[in-house]
Parts: sequence; structure tokens; C-alpha cells
Amino acid sequence: MCETNGSAASNGTNGSNGTNGTAPVRRSNPYQSNPGEFLSNVGRFKIIESTLREGEQFANAYFDTQTKINIAKALDAFGVDYIELTSPAASEQSRLDCIEICKLGLKAKILTHVRCDMRDVQMAIDTGVDGLDIVIGTSHFLREHSHGKDMAFITKAALEVVQYVKDKGIEVRFSSEDSFRSDLVDLLSLYNAVDKIGVNRVGIADTVGCASPRQVYELVRTLRGVVSCDIETHFHNDTGCAIANAFCALEAGATHVDTSVLGIGERNGITPLGGFLARMVVTSPDYVKSKYKLSMIKEIEDMVAEAVEINTPFNNPITGFCAFTHKAGIHAKAILNNPSTYEILNPEDFGLTRYVHFASRLTGWNAVKTRVTQLGLTMTDDQVKECTAKIKALADVRPIAIDDADSIIRSFHLNLQNVANNS
Amino acid sequence: MCETNGSAASNGTNGSNGTNGTAPVRRSNPYQSNPGEFLSNVGRFKIIESTLREGEQFANAYFDTQTKINIAKALDAFGVDYIELTSPAASEQSRLDCIEICKLGLKAKILTHVRCDMRDVQMAIDTGVDGLDIVIGTSHFLREHSHGKDMAFITKAALEVVQYVKDKGIEVRFSSEDSFRSDLVDLLSLYNAVDKIGVNRVGIADTVGCASPRQVYELVRTLRGVVSCDIETHFHNDTGCAIANAFCALEAGATHVDTSVLGIGERNGITPLGGFLARMVVTSPDYVKSKYKLSMIKEIEDMVAEAVEINTPFNNPITGFCAFTHKAGIHAKAILNNPSTYEILNPEDFGLTRYVHFASRLTGWNAVKTRVTQLGLTMTDDQVKECTAKIKALADVRPIAIDDADSIIRSFHLNLQNVANNS
Repeated sequence: MCETNGSAASNGTNGSNGTNGTAPVRRSNPYQSNPGEFLSNVGRFKIIESTLREGEQFANAYFDTQTKINIAKALDAFGVDYIELTSPAASEQSRLDCIEICKLGLKAKILTHVRCDMRDVQMAIDTGVDGLDIVIGTSHFLREHSHGKDMAFITKAALEVVQYVKDKGIEVRFSSEDSFRSDLVDLLSLYNAVDKIGVNRVGIADTVGCASPRQVYELVRTLRGVVSCDIETHFHNDTGCAIANAFCALEAGATHVDTSVLGIGERNGITPLGGFLARMVVTSPDYVKSKYKLSMIKEIEDMVAEAVEINTPFNNPITGFCAFTHKAGIHAKAILNNPSTYEILNPEDFGLTRYVHFASRLTGWNAVKTRVTQLGLTMTDDQVKECTAKIKALADVRPIAIDDADSIIRSFHLNLQNVANNS
Repeated sequence: MCETNGSAASNGTNGSNGTNGTAPVRRSNPYQSNPGEFLSNVGRFKIIESTLREGEQFANAYFDTQTKINIAKALDAFGVDYIELTSPAASEQSRLDCIEICKLGLKAKILTHVRCDMRDVQMAIDTGVDGLDIVIGTSHFLREHSHGKDMAFITKAALEVVQYVKDKGIEVRFSSEDSFRSDLVDLLSLYNAVDKIGVNRVGIADTVGCASPRQVYELVRTLRGVVSCDIETHFHNDTGCAIANAFCALEAGATHVDTSVLGIGERNGITPLGGFLARMVVTSPDYVKSKYKLSMIKEIEDMVAEAVEINTPFNNPITGFCAFTHKAGIHAKAILNNPSTYEILNPEDFGLTRYVHFASRLTGWNAVKTRVTQLGLTMTDDQVKECTAKIKALADVRPIAIDDADSIIRSFHLNLQNVANNS
């Protein structure tokens, strides 16, 4: 079973995992991500949280210093491994905010994201960050239309900058931009070169959101065989695959995943922190629950949503308003017997609760029966079925609220009593 | 390159594809979904649009008859292959609406989704639909906690029902529920049995949203070798992989994908129509553009969003308010030179437009220079750079609107003129 198997992937055991896992199905279904795959890091990944860098590139984002500090502290309390900040070269206030956040003394390491340019690098080092994320475009698109440099120049600049940052004794990552539209040989040669001089991480970035899961798996798996350093991955969501691509990158041996709260970033953004952890907690429940404070996801999302003046999407994993709402009759019936029938995520893991929707024409008598009990009333199954028919009849005419359904149940129950008393 | 390669996947040629594809990168990067894979249907898939079935199970959904008709007509005009409706057994109005929609004479085939139960099946056939989507739970969870039937019973019922529907001369699909937590041997045996008697499609359903892309690929590829009929797939989005899973299912040989507008459905829903087509138009632009009226996506999403009283998510692929907004200076610069640098989707394909955000501290002088030209003003590059510094300075203090930036530009330009006139 997905999550039980995932549990194994993360800790090699077949224990219960809090998302209703049980053994039988796991034994019966071999089509799961294989915990035996030595490449896979689905049970030991690190998060580079980029709400304060990629997220600041979101159309609506303007973070004043205090807001940045609040977000950084919340992410640190949540348990992210790294917090990435906008380049101090972007503006004077960006530089001052970098210095401020470095002074907070957070557990998370502070990174800033800078162009492969010695002036930007020096300015970044001077802010006191724990590490630099160096980036340069390598696709022919960016080489022609952005910085206009060739691969020889890029490699030379990369080696100079990486060596310089290493000599300063701080962490350094070197990433290409638009990796999936870059020449593979160029890419591997470049990464091989920076790996040889001891770069901490190389980065694969799907800057335009064109990559698909199996492409990601293939590229990362190949890179894993070329470099010995860590592999960071960054996925944009233009084609809706940012969470899946991050997952497949980990399966192929990537070690770090970039996220932002609610996925905010350039265009429609990147891998969202909450959605990514919904995927990972199903696959590696023990690792994820022991490392990240999942009950904070909602408050962190609310904090950022308010700061950038957006609403949490109705369909957001975990925190979408209906993520744990069950409506169709057959779903409601099974959920009431055992939540694991229609839930792979356990709302309690996120400090949230389940809701079984019974006030609609799709409802079933099992859902109504539960409501009858909740209202402290007593009916036979046949009576509940008759009452359910009345609810469906009204719901056929117009949308009905819980109150409407409750009224129908109560009046139906009242009639039953009157009939009993009068007989 | 992703989309050029995809173009090849869809039509075997290496033509330009309207999403800025060019040949060089394709030749240089082998890590793409391989058009040579004989299994892949990424260039010849069919859409089963389930907004009027799965979508009606969304917490907020209540569709009156006229709304259902409007949605059905819009989906038909858009070009979906099938429209799936709520079971007529759900309620009397659901039954009447089935009959009504069948009478519309749409190009799309009309399906309804019913339990593997002869009464429901007969009621469905009597509505005049073109086909039935039969479903029954096969996971041990559903067998124990929902219908309580064993596999022998399920197989017997499946064969009876499928044969009965076939004898009536209409299309029939047989699907398991919760396929990814079902016993693989049970699943393959069951599908093999219904395939032998000529079922039109078998369905794989990730009812709880637990599946990951490579699991989907493996399961569908195996099933592809066991049955000769079409393979329909249905993916819930609880862990954010519904679009990616549908894509990998097609790569493995699935023929049909279930979608709903904005992904509305039980809990946080299923593969969204728009997001799925964002993925597919990048991979198979010629096929998608020739078959589906992409410029209708926004109006269809707006129609459904209004009907169920939700907002289009800020980060929705294609139609999210910032899907084609570019903010960071280096992005803006490149986009202005050539949109394909940071766009894999062409907004014009969807009747939408690009916006380069220049009123922020992350802006660059190239973006400002474009704005200066848009405002009909003339400045040297040095003057634009000086003006850009003023914009960044204000944007450091508070969020600024386009008007603010325009004012700065205009006043800066005015000063230039005064200086010129006074000299």
C-alpha cells in the first residue's frame, strides 16, 4: 500500500504509519516506489524553503522587513533545513534584510541566491549568510537572449566563483537555469567540473516548468552518476507537475528540494511546501512526521497568503477548505466505517478535522444515520432511509444547508413520536 | 526540448509548434519522453470530462438542470470526447437531467457513472446515454468497509453487468475503485475477464490520491499487456500529483483521462481539465491545438467557478492571474528579448496576454526601458538606469503600483526636458 510501503522506504520497517496503513495490501501490490532502490532519497530529503526568494518574485509579493522575519521564524519553527533569501544585489533593503535575518540565530541555514558574478557574490558573503546559491542560465535560449555568454565563459566563471566562496569557508551551490532545455553534455561537463573542486551542491532547475516526471527521473539519475556532491532540484509549476517532479527527483537520488509556501513564485510558482509534504508524508510518514511540525502548515500558509493578499486555493492539498470533506453517499458510508477507505492523509496529522457532507442529493442513508445519532435522536434504519429520501427530494429542488437537513430530520423524528403517542 | 520533442511525440515530425520550439535543444537533450515509445499515447488521448459527475461530488457543487446544460454545451464546444454524468440512481432530478442532456444532441458521447448493480444499470440505460461507466471497489478497505463483497462475487457481478450492457448495444467501461491499493493479481484477473467478453474500457482509479507517477507508469504498462481494450484513468489530487499521474498513464499506454473543470470533485478533487491540457499542449502541441478549443478554457473555468462559488486558484495553470506575469529583472530582460526564454506556454494559444511586471524592487532597467517606450517617452540607457534606481528606491519603502512607477518615470523625464530647455 502506498503509505505503508513508503514507511518502509523511509525506515525499512513495515510499521503502522498514522495514515491508516495496514500490511496485507502492501504485500499484495508490487507497484510501489521501491524502498530497495538505493538511489531513492524519499525517506531522507532536505527542504530549501524559498518563499523569501522565489516567493518574492510572485506578482503580488512585497515583504517588508518584519514580514520577512516573521516568515523566517515560522519556517524555522516548522523545521525547514534551509531558508533562501533574495539576492542582496537586488536592492539596498534586500541587502539589509539579509543581514537582519542572519542575525536571528535560527536553526535553519540561511542562503541567498545570486548570479554567477563576483560583485554579487562578494556583496552576499558580506551579509553573513551560511551559504550561497549561485545560478547561471545554460540553455541556448538564455545564453542567446539573457547573458549572451558561451559555455567556456560559464565554466570559467563558475570555477572562479565556487572556489572563491569555498575559500571563504561557506556553503556553495552551483545551479544552471532552465536545465531541461540545456545541452546535456554541457550540463554534465559543467557540474562535473564544479564537483571536482568541491562544490557542496549542484542544482537542476526546471525554470520554465516544462519537465515531466520520468524526464526528471532520467536526468537526475544520470547526474547522480556523474557528481558526488548533493543534488538540489527546483521545479516550476506551469504544467502542474512541480510536486510530482520533486518526488521523482528524490526517487532518482536528488537530496534537496526547493519549495515556497503555497508555491508562490514567478508566474504560477514552484513546488508548494504543503503539497510537497502531503506527497512525502504518504510515502515516508515516519521521516516527515519526526522532522517537520505538520500542524503548523495551515498557520504558515495563512500568514503568507495574508502577506501577499491571496486566498488559499480551494483545492490546496491538506488546507483546501474541502480537502477532508466527503460527499457522495458511498464515500460517506465507507468513511464512517473506516476513514482509510477514502483518505490517504489523516487530517489529525495536520491538526485538522474530517467532515462528512450529508446535506445533498448525493447523500446516502448511512451519512444521515450518523447525523441522526449526532443530534441525539433514535430511528430504525428504515426510518432513516425514509428520512434520507426527504432530504434528497429537497436537495433536488435547491442547494440545502446542514440546518435544512437537520430540520427535516427533526420534523421527521417529531412525526414519528406523535404517531407513537397517538397510537 | 520539451515541447518540440512532444510535437514529435504527437505527430512524428519536428515542426515548430507554437510554443517557441526550435530544433537545436531537442537534438542535444535525450532526456525527454520518448516519441519512439510505442506504448505512449501522449499524442492520441481522449478526455472523459466528469465535471457533471465527479465535479458534482465537490463540497460546494449544486448544479440545477440549466447549469448542467450550459456546462455540457460548453464542454462539447471545447471538444471533449465524453461527458460523464451523475448516476440517475442518485436522485430523481439526476435521472431527469441525464435524459435532458442526452436529448441535446451533442458531438461528445454522454456517459453516466453507476455502481455494479443491475437496478442502477437498467435505470441508466433507460436514460438514453451512449455508454455506462461501471464501478466497484476492489481494495480490501472497500471490500471490508463498503460493499463487503469478495472477489468471486465482484467478478461474477462484473461479467453479468458488462454482458448485459453490451447486449443493449451501448458502450461499457468497467473500473475498480482504489486500484492502487487493490491486490494486483485480483485486479489483472478481473480486467482480463471483462476484456475477454468485450468490455470497451477498463478503468484504473486512484480514488484516494495515493499514487505517484512511476507507480502509475508501472501499473498501467502492466495492464496494457494484459488487456486489449482501452484503458481509462482517474486520479485524485490529495498529494498534488493528479496531472503528472495522468501524463505518466498516457506514456504507459492509457487511452482515456478523466478530468473536471478546475479539478472539482470529492475532497480536493481530480486532474483539472485546464492544467492537464497545459501539460499536454507542451508535449503534443499539434494534437492538442487541432482537437481542443484552448481559447475557451478561461470562460469554461469562469462558468464553473461561478456555479460552485469558488475563485480560480491564484496559481492555476494557464488562467491563474499571474500565470504569464514576469517580475524578476533578469526574467523580464530575457522575456523582452524572446518570450521562449521563460515561457513554455504561449499565452496567445489561450487567448491571453503576457505581462512584464516592472513596478517592484526586483525590476531591472530593461523592463523599465520597455515601459518608457510604452509611455511614448525617450531616454538614453543611462537615463533609464538612473530612473530604475529611483523606482527600486521607492519599492524598497512600500509596495508600488504601476501608476507609482509611471509617475516616477514621467517626472524623471520631465526633469530631463527642463534641464535640456534651461541649458
